[in-house]
Amino acid sequence: MKKADIEIARQKAIEVYEKAHIVLSDEEKANIEVADFGLNDVYNTGLLLVTYINTDRYCGKEMVLLPGMTCPEHIHAPLPEKNYIGKQETFRCRYGKVYLYVEGEPTPNHHCHPVKEDTCYTVFHEIVLEPGQQYTIAPNTRHWFSTDTESVISEFSSPSFDELDIFTDKDIQRIPTIDD
Amino acid sequence: MKKADIEIARQKAIEVYEKAHIVLSDEEKANIEVADFGLNDVYNTGLLLVTYINTDRYCGKEMVLLPGMTCPEHIHAPLPEKNYIGKQETFRCRYGKVYLYVEGEPTPNHHCHPVKEDTCYTVFHEIVLEPGQQYTIAPNTRHWFSTDTESVISEFSSPSFDELDIFTDKDIQRIPTIDD
Repeated sequence: MKKADIEIARQKAIEVYEKAHIVLSDEEKANIEVADFGLNDVYNTGLLLVTYINTDRYCGKEMVLLPGMTCPEHIHAPLPEKNYIGKQETFRCRYGKVYLYVEGEPTPNHHCHPVKEDTCYTVFHEIVLEPGQQYTIAPNTRHWFSTDTESVISEFSSPSFDELDIFTDKDIQRIPTIDD
Repeated sequence: MKKADIEIARQKAIEVYEKAHIVLSDEEKANIEVADFGLNDVYNTGLLLVTYINTDRYCGKEMVLLPGMTCPEHIHAPLPEKNYIGKQETFRCRYGKVYLYVEGEPTPNHHCHPVKEDTCYTVFHEIVLEPGQQYTIAPNTRHWFSTDTESVISEFSSPSFDELDIFTDKDIQRIPTIDD
């Protein structure tokens, strides 16, 4: 992504955090992560987030999805080289409405239809999260999430190694390059 | 504490969560933990909280302090019987203003003066947290926190074993009894 485009997406995220009454420091606002997963199509396949803390023991984040934005299907696999059984994470909806898809019986007429649904998405068991609702995803479970409203999700989890997530879409690079 | 008094404190907590725009489910509201630490003086020495998740890998809570309320000095010691080096926790102020006290150089003219300060408090290095500010407390570190405004603190941490916290005030029972 171009720096200028990252800055535009960052401003959109800041507006959503403010609507949700979530206070960020100036430094956090300036460093909101704009993840386009290397596809350069962030408003379809993307995630906007602040990592508050990521120690070797736990992690806390707050993530924004804009309407129509999908965090693409991935898995937090075991990392034997780190003696790590894989990330466990609890998503708590704070604002808006989030559709989370995990392994299990596919939900008939599921709500969200991401770009590349036919080729890069394989799990369609739908969990709807409204503010105050949460769901815990076991390690090594395929999942993706999307929305059609501005949404904020808190994540409580074991440590994150985002760069080692495994995506169904093999074109994805989790840690994207930034162009001038 | 009497059940009726717990219910009154719970309602006060609900009002603060609402002012902070934090959405709780009805079940969470009904089960807000009113911790009086067995001292039966909750508006001076107490903590109101919701534990969103506490697995064997991480924990997430959101805590309310009312004006003048102090969570008393304690330590999360190592738990060799659980092969656990002690709880590490990150406090993030969401609403109000929180004064956190930890080990270190005592702050001159520190702001908060809890009941029993002279006998049951030993650390006075003051950290002021306003919304959007956070601080990580290492395991095995004495700490306490207080406020003079309605405040909400998010806690991201390793697993919690509240019942095994060690308090400086030996009259404290972390898991209190409830009277009819």
